[in-house]
Amino acid sequence: MNDVELWRELGQQLRVDAIRPAAKAGSGHPTSGMSAADLMAVLMARYLRYDFDDPHDPHNDRLVFSKGHASTLLYAMFRAAGAISEEELLTYRQFDSIFEGHPTPRIPWVDVATGSLGQGLPYSVGIALAGKRLDRLPFRVWTLCGDSEIAEGSQWEALEHAAFYELDNLVAILDVNRLGQRGETMHGWDLDSYANRARAFGCHAIEIDGHDVEAIDRAYAEALEVEGKPVVIVARTIKGKGAKQVEDKNGFHGKALDHSDEIVEELGGVRNIRVDVAKPDARGARHDFGGGELELPRYEPGDKVATRKAYGDALAALGKARGDVVALDGEVSNSTYAEEFRDELPDRYFEMYIAEQQMIATAVGMQVLGWRPFASTFAAFLSRAYDFIRMSAISRASYCLCGSHAGISIGEDGPSQMALEDIASLRAVHGSTVLHPCDANQTARLVAAMADLDGVSYLRTLRPATPVLYGPDEEFGIGGSRTLREGDDVALIGAGITVHESLEAAEKLAEEGIEARVIDLYSIKPLDEETLRSLTCPIVTAEDHWPEGGLGEAVLSALAEGEERPPVVRLAVTGMPHSGPPNELLAEAGIDADGIAAAARRLVGAHARS
Amino acid sequence: MNDVELWRELGQQLRVDAIRPAAKAGSGHPTSGMSAADLMAVLMARYLRYDFDDPHDPHNDRLVFSKGHASTLLYAMFRAAGAISEEELLTYRQFDSIFEGHPTPRIPWVDVATGSLGQGLPYSVGIALAGKRLDRLPFRVWTLCGDSEIAEGSQWEALEHAAFYELDNLVAILDVNRLGQRGETMHGWDLDSYANRARAFGCHAIEIDGHDVEAIDRAYAEALEVEGKPVVIVARTIKGKGAKQVEDKNGFHGKALDHSDEIVEELGGVRNIRVDVAKPDARGARHDFGGGELELPRYEPGDKVATRKAYGDALAALGKARGDVVALDGEVSNSTYAEEFRDELPDRYFEMYIAEQQMIATAVGMQVLGWRPFASTFAAFLSRAYDFIRMSAISRASYCLCGSHAGISIGEDGPSQMALEDIASLRAVHGSTVLHPCDANQTARLVAAMADLDGVSYLRTLRPATPVLYGPDEEFGIGGSRTLREGDDVALIGAGITVHESLEAAEKLAEEGIEARVIDLYSIKPLDEETLRSLTCPIVTAEDHWPEGGLGEAVLSALAEGEERPPVVRLAVTGMPHSGPPNELLAEAGIDADGIAAAARRLVGAHARS
Repeated sequence: MNDVELWRELGQQLRVDAIRPAAKAGSGHPTSGMSAADLMAVLMARYLRYDFDDPHDPHNDRLVFSKGHASTLLYAMFRAAGAISEEELLTYRQFDSIFEGHPTPRIPWVDVATGSLGQGLPYSVGIALAGKRLDRLPFRVWTLCGDSEIAEGSQWEALEHAAFYELDNLVAILDVNRLGQRGETMHGWDLDSYANRARAFGCHAIEIDGHDVEAIDRAYAEALEVEGKPVVIVARTIKGKGAKQVEDKNGFHGKALDHSDEIVEELGGVRNIRVDVAKPDARGARHDFGGGELELPRYEPGDKVATRKAYGDALAALGKARGDVVALDGEVSNSTYAEEFRDELPDRYFEMYIAEQQMIATAVGMQVLGWRPFASTFAAFLSRAYDFIRMSAISRASYCLCGSHAGISIGEDGPSQMALEDIASLRAVHGSTVLHPCDANQTARLVAAMADLDGVSYLRTLRPATPVLYGPDEEFGIGGSRTLREGDDVALIGAGITVHESLEAAEKLAEEGIEARVIDLYSIKPLDEETLRSLTCPIVTAEDHWPEGGLGEAVLSALAEGEERPPVVRLAVTGMPHSGPPNELLAEAGIDADGIAAAARRLVGAHARS
Repeated sequence: MNDVELWRELGQQLRVDAIRPAAKAGSGHPTSGMSAADLMAVLMARYLRYDFDDPHDPHNDRLVFSKGHASTLLYAMFRAAGAISEEELLTYRQFDSIFEGHPTPRIPWVDVATGSLGQGLPYSVGIALAGKRLDRLPFRVWTLCGDSEIAEGSQWEALEHAAFYELDNLVAILDVNRLGQRGETMHGWDLDSYANRARAFGCHAIEIDGHDVEAIDRAYAEALEVEGKPVVIVARTIKGKGAKQVEDKNGFHGKALDHSDEIVEELGGVRNIRVDVAKPDARGARHDFGGGELELPRYEPGDKVATRKAYGDALAALGKARGDVVALDGEVSNSTYAEEFRDELPDRYFEMYIAEQQMIATAVGMQVLGWRPFASTFAAFLSRAYDFIRMSAISRASYCLCGSHAGISIGEDGPSQMALEDIASLRAVHGSTVLHPCDANQTARLVAAMADLDGVSYLRTLRPATPVLYGPDEEFGIGGSRTLREGDDVALIGAGITVHESLEAAEKLAEEGIEARVIDLYSIKPLDEETLRSLTCPIVTAEDHWPEGGLGEAVLSALAEGEERPPVVRLAVTGMPHSGPPNELLAEAGIDADGIAAAARRLVGAHARS
């Protein structure tokens, strides 16, 4: 067979192998794989540089299926590359199989989980940016996108950043099969609509027939020659290509094919072509930014320092000590203080502009290659990227988030800038860590600790300057808490700003003869359950957050199973806040010292009576 | 004064009045208002059609400040229009003022809250789409956008939908002042970069000098003539225009100006021009789609029907009964069953394609005009629009969400499609309602009830068919629960799929002599606290959701303050799920009947021993 014949045959093999596992499983998206089979055949036969025996080789190209539902096509490629057997292919979607409905990094050759559409391309931008500016190795990122998913704004954030950062190591392959899940896409087969958008965003676009293997070959060859721009190959394809029964027909999106044996016959039957995917050029080593001794900033107890400032100070220190640490920010680095890292370590700082989805995706992409990104913005705006954060847990990604300006303590800017749902939403991310320090030395220690955590770790910082409570040599474990004041009449539990309010409340209570214990619950997930369960006095929790899913509910969860539990009064923000001075807002919400003391008094009184 | 002189003077007045409130408050974004002052001067003096005495007049144009931080400019326009006094203007950012840091609908002339960037334009698309296809009135939507916020992908979702739906009643005014919060934007003053993108997305783009009032006038006049396309006016402006001290300088984004008196002098001093904004053409009435008697679908107890199917059936029935009900879906209407509404009521169904942010924004925009949107997608993908949902609570918006395919009970598609954080994240939205029915008749009743709720209401539906438990005439109040089985040894509390598993567990336990009460907690927010607090036996909660912020923590919150509380064992999904048959996944997570029964047994045993 010559190359062209091989590509055609391989395309048919991939099509057949995209059908068979779905048929066996009784579910899946075979028609979505069939449209892209020729595109992937030429890619793996001639262009991809990848060592399936060593997926962690930093010289490897990366292949991302942004249209994750076409997973059987990806798995068919693994079989054609000799990485998996036919038997393994046919375990698709079974309980014990790593070949799930959508790809995840449980599979050695998959770097990021996809399946929430419009994410694979943003992740690819992160990987490509790391390749160019951190690893400094000449690998390419090849990303297969569906046409339906181009409707996600995240794709345009991705292309804009790819163009801005001149990522000519990124090739997006757009499989324009015209049909989405429930019907035609917005643009059907209007290839120009995609190509013109991509060009306007600064990409090099190539339009082709996605079933003409020679045209595909030429497009890839052209892509390799492009300099300074990402490439978008816009390929006209046919959904369900090759199977008359379903070809270009609506209604066959997420379905295994009936009569799959006949369709396999129609496609020429099962094939066993084995492609020796070219190994990457192993020359050159990953760039090493070096490092040194960690010298965290030190703050004087009693001074007033904002925890956001301590984040910036500590991150810059961490970056100097560890060459793998990278900082990203969403155009607010002068507020989050990520600017300190940028000023000290500009080579490892990446401005993500006001594009939080791309910021998270960049972090996920960079950690694929072993970097440790810290991404920051206002805590409220992390909600913009919540689906990316959710998916990053499925990607088994490890990176760090910092959300500044949390809660009503920001004051005059008003509710749009006040994160009041961040603890709830980020606790509900699998394997996440949620930290909320109240002082600058604690913040610095936690920033350093985050850099070694698995999974998504989140640090919540405050806008206002708060008193330094702890000495610079104190240590703060993940999952710990700190008892700042002893007392057995009532326990006041807070984090962040409410620690300071709780301390003040305890002073007031002491004047009345009520001895309040004050606990700084800086680690909201994981939680210091032992300390919480040891409490026998009534508890007041106070948080600058909605009551749902926050610190108060976390405390309740630690106490849930006990037979004997003290009553817990939870103070939180319940009314919609507005602009105003922080102290007045805290008072209005009842989470200032007066509000906490009042709740404690009621509780101690009721407890005494009972 | 001739028109041109008036516009120039008015521009200076707006500039001065954008500075003064920030100076008084000591914070704000005056320079961001100063760049757009001339654009707004010509708009209000000649083009805007708005009755400030009757902001609810359906004929009114709508003005949206997508760059919400330029709020002092907006409030300056209100003063120039005679809607507010100088004194009111100068209450900006004070505790009791409705003139907050960022605009909210607490102000009568503001329709949507902005301040999370990249949202005003998407909301405007929703308003304009309603104007064209629902109200069918010829008003225009004028939207002032910042250049920094164009980096948000949501803006491109907005322009794509605006072009697809041919919204020539939408004019986006892009204030290209070159400077973001922390420095230059990606594209600086490259107006072509914006205009070319807008054109590629199907818009009519006009490039102008945004301080040349005659050019501005011509641009608006041209915008009025455009047919079948949205218009984007790309205006080159200068941040801080007119004040030498800050003009086009970095470092003055979110800051009140020093020496503001001098700057006001430099701008020619305080002015008191009063503009009679033209009233709208009052001809024509809002289109009325009519209505009729509500005939909800009825299901036979014992039959198996998916709650997502019942949602589709009930929504179509509701739409026939109520002409104000509108349906939106994110390209999965054949999965959510919103397709039933589309087939019955195509004029009130809007396909949002795979653009969940724009879907929510469209809902928010449409409810501004009094429509009642129901927006649906997979529950997992609502996370894509979490910032929009968060902000919609600040907009005081009332609309309905349906998330289908919740939890691991979806089975083979795998974790990317399994919502396990939706209850936590949507409980943590101010004023939200969270409902999770377990049966088809209950679903239908709740869909009807949602249409009358204030705020964001969320219905969580299941992929698999589940037995109909309730009769079609049973009623289900918001904030209620249903005790499906009496028993005093242990209470099993679930919602959705876990109600069925709890019932089966109770059967098993009964065989062993353990009498389990089974509670269907279909209303997770608000919660039936009375019923929960009346329980004296140990409690097992079971939910197809992460443990954080879900049903279990909601139950704990209801019990928190009591002195005597039964122990609560919370069963939830704790490990990362994967593809597999639903029953095997439920068993693995320990939330199937066996898992629930086992937990109940342990708890009853421990309780008996204690």
